[in-house]
Amino acid sequence: MKKDVEKIYSDAITACLPDSVVREAVSSLPPVKGKLLSVAIGKAAWKMSSTAAEELGDRLTGGIVITKYHHSMGDIPRTEIYKAGHPVPDENTIAATERVLEFTSSLTEDDMVLFLVSGGGSALFESVECGLDELQDMTRQLLAAGASIGEINTLRKHLSKVKGGKFAEHVAPARVYAVLLSDVLGNDPSTIASGPACPDSSCVEDVHRIIAKYSLSLSPSVLSQLERETPKALSNSEYVIGGSVTELCAAAKRTAESLGFKTEILTDCLDTEARYAGEFLSAIGKAHKDTDIPLAYIAGGETVVHLKGRGKGGRNQELALSAALAVSGYDNIAVFSVGSDGTDGPTDAAGGYADGGTADRIRSAGIDPLSALENNDAYNALSAADSLIVTGPTGTNVNDISVVLIYPKNK
Amino acid sequence: MKKDVEKIYSDAITACLPDSVVREAVSSLPPVKGKLLSVAIGKAAWKMSSTAAEELGDRLTGGIVITKYHHSMGDIPRTEIYKAGHPVPDENTIAATERVLEFTSSLTEDDMVLFLVSGGGSALFESVECGLDELQDMTRQLLAAGASIGEINTLRKHLSKVKGGKFAEHVAPARVYAVLLSDVLGNDPSTIASGPACPDSSCVEDVHRIIAKYSLSLSPSVLSQLERETPKALSNSEYVIGGSVTELCAAAKRTAESLGFKTEILTDCLDTEARYAGEFLSAIGKAHKDTDIPLAYIAGGETVVHLKGRGKGGRNQELALSAALAVSGYDNIAVFSVGSDGTDGPTDAAGGYADGGTADRIRSAGIDPLSALENNDAYNALSAADSLIVTGPTGTNVNDISVVLIYPKNK
Repeated sequence: MKKDVEKIYSDAITACLPDSVVREAVSSLPPVKGKLLSVAIGKAAWKMSSTAAEELGDRLTGGIVITKYHHSMGDIPRTEIYKAGHPVPDENTIAATERVLEFTSSLTEDDMVLFLVSGGGSALFESVECGLDELQDMTRQLLAAGASIGEINTLRKHLSKVKGGKFAEHVAPARVYAVLLSDVLGNDPSTIASGPACPDSSCVEDVHRIIAKYSLSLSPSVLSQLERETPKALSNSEYVIGGSVTELCAAAKRTAESLGFKTEILTDCLDTEARYAGEFLSAIGKAHKDTDIPLAYIAGGETVVHLKGRGKGGRNQELALSAALAVSGYDNIAVFSVGSDGTDGPTDAAGGYADGGTADRIRSAGIDPLSALENNDAYNALSAADSLIVTGPTGTNVNDISVVLIYPKNK
Repeated sequence: MKKDVEKIYSDAITACLPDSVVREAVSSLPPVKGKLLSVAIGKAAWKMSSTAAEELGDRLTGGIVITKYHHSMGDIPRTEIYKAGHPVPDENTIAATERVLEFTSSLTEDDMVLFLVSGGGSALFESVECGLDELQDMTRQLLAAGASIGEINTLRKHLSKVKGGKFAEHVAPARVYAVLLSDVLGNDPSTIASGPACPDSSCVEDVHRIIAKYSLSLSPSVLSQLERETPKALSNSEYVIGGSVTELCAAAKRTAESLGFKTEILTDCLDTEARYAGEFLSAIGKAHKDTDIPLAYIAGGETVVHLKGRGKGGRNQELALSAALAVSGYDNIAVFSVGSDGTDGPTDAAGGYADGGTADRIRSAGIDPLSALENNDAYNALSAADSLIVTGPTGTNVNDISVVLIYPKNK
C-alpha cells in the first residue's frame, strides 16, 4: 500500500514541477518572427527561466528573473536575475519591475514575451507611480476598515503599473504568452499573481464606490492614478495554466489508474478544516470497504487548521492523523495527504500517511493519537508510527493532494 | 432546483418507511406450516406490527409490540401492546420482555417468529435474571472505569436473556425471520438493538478479561449468569435489513437518476462534523461547476455537532448553513441535508437547503450567516431564507442524507 502511495504522490508532484511545465509549454509556443524575451516572476522563477533558456537556446533573445531572496541558483544564459522582498514588496521589487518595463518597451508585433508566473508573483512584481509608501498606506486603511480581499485587489490593480492586465497592455503590440503555475484554488488567471497579463473585470466606478464606502484618505497622485482604467480585453495575450492543483489531481489520477485503481477526482478546491476532511475521506473509504476492485478517491486543494494546541504539524499531517483514527482496524484502506511544495506547516515533512494499523502503531509508541490531534501535534504522532511523508522542498507549489485508496479484501 | 430536492428526499424517506419495509419483507416471507407470531420492538414497532398484521391477515397467529411510551397508536388485530422506558429500560421493559419470552416458548420447528426491529430496541427489549439494579450497577462501574462501548456490550450481551442472539436461541427450534430497520452506521445486525437474533462473536473469556481489567465488583448471581455463553451460530435465524441509511442513499440515487442526474453515492457512513461536511460537499460541487450534465453526489450517515453557541438548530441544518456560505454565488449548485426521522435537533425542521443565493437571502433578512453558524443558530438563519426542510415526523429513523446537486450552466 505504501508503495502505491509513494508512486502516486511523487508522479503527481513531478508532473507539476516548473521544468516539466515549462518544457511542455515551450514545445507548443507559437512561432516568433522578432525578438523572444522571457520574464519570470515568483518563487519558482529561477527554475522556470532556466528551463526556458535551456529549451529555447538561441531562439531566446534575452530574459529577466524576479524571485525571492535566496531563490536564485546561479547564472542563466542571456538572463538578468533580480531578487526582492516576499511576502512584502520592497524597493528592490520596484526597481526590478521597472527594469522589466524598460526591457519590454518599444517591442513590435513580431516580438513575444514568454511570461513565466509562479506563486509569490503578486508581491515580487509590482510598481506604482506614487511610490511604495502610499500603496502600503492605502492597503492599511482598507484592512483597518474591514474591506474584503476583492475590494482591496480592485484598488491595487488600478493603482499598479503591472497588475490587472496592465503588463500585457504595456508590452503591446508584442504578444504575451503566459505560463502559469497556479497556487490559487480555482486557478483564476486574473488572481494568479494579480493577473499582469489577464483582463480585469473591475472598473473605475468600483474604485469610486470603495473609496466612498470606507472614507479612504488618499493623496492626489494616488487618486489620479486610480483613474487609469484596467484593460477589459487583451488581444495580444494568451496563457496556459501549466501546473495547478487541477493538474496535480489529474496526474495522480493517471498514476493511480496505471496501478489498477478505478479513480475519481472528487474536487480540486477542497478548503475545509483538515481534520474533518480526513474524516470525510475515511468515511468514503469505509463505505467501499467491500469493493471487488481497487478504488482511489482524490481531493485536491488547501485545507485549513484552526490551531488549538501547541504541537508540531501541518494541514496534511493533521488530515492524515485524523484519518488514522477514522480508518483504525480497516486493513484494506489507506489515506494520505501531501503538500506539493514538500513543506507542510513548520516541519520538514510534506504530509502524512494512514492505514488501518497506524493508530495502533502510534499508541505502541506511547502516544495517544486523539490527544496528539487535539494538541495539533500530528508530526510527532505520525513520526512515531513511521507515517510521515518526507520529500524535501520540491521546487513547485500547486497546493495539496489528499487521497483515499481502498483495496479488495482478498488481495 | 428546490423541486428536485423535495422529490429526492421525500422518495428516499418513503422507501424507508416501516410500512414499505414490512410490506416488502412480508411478501418474501418463507412458507410457514405452524404458528406465525410477530414480535415488534423499537420506536417504529407499532407501525411495523400493524402493517404486518394487515398484510398477513389470518396467517398471523398472534403478536406482541414493545414500544416507547406514547408511541402506540391504537389496537392491532391479534396483538398485545406494551409500552416501556426509553432510552433507559424500566420495570415495564422487563415485564414486557418476559411476556415475549413466555409467548415464544414451546414452539416447534414448524413455527416462525416474524421479528420486527427498529431503533430503540436495545433499551425496550431487555431482561436479566439478576434484576435491573445489578445491570445498571455493572454499567455504571464500566463507564466510570473508562471501558469502551465494545467492552460494555460484551458484558451486556452475556448478562442479558435476549441480546447477543439469545432471543433466537430461546425461540428454537422455531425459525426467526428478522426485519431490521437500521439506525446504526454500517448496519451491523449484531449491533442493531444489540442483535437479539444474531450470533455474537464475543465469548466468556472476553468477559473474564474485562472483569479483571477494570477490577469490577459483581455479585455471585451476575457472575454466574455472565458464564452463559452467547450463541456463535444460529441455524434457525435469518434477517433482512429492510431500511437503513444504505437503502436511504440507494433510493435517493434511484430518484436522482430518474430526474436525469448522473449520481454517485460517496459514503453511507459519514460521521464527521456537520459544518465541515457541508464544506466538503460544497467543494465537490464547486469543482464540477462547469459540468455539461446534471450531477448528484450523495452522502449518508450521521454527522455530529460540537456545540459552541446557544442558537437553535440540528446537524442537518448546520450542514446546510455551512454549505450556504460555501456555495454563495454559484447559481447552479444546491446542497441539502435531511434527517430521515423528520426531526433535526430540538427543532420542528428535518433539515435544510442551500443554493448560491441562500447566504444573501439570509443577509437580506438582517442575519449574518457566519455569525449564525458560529452560534449554532442554523434554524433561524435558514428560516429567514425560507430554506428549512420541514416534513413532520416521518415514522422512520435510518439516519440522514446529504446531497449536492450540480446543474449544467446553460440550463
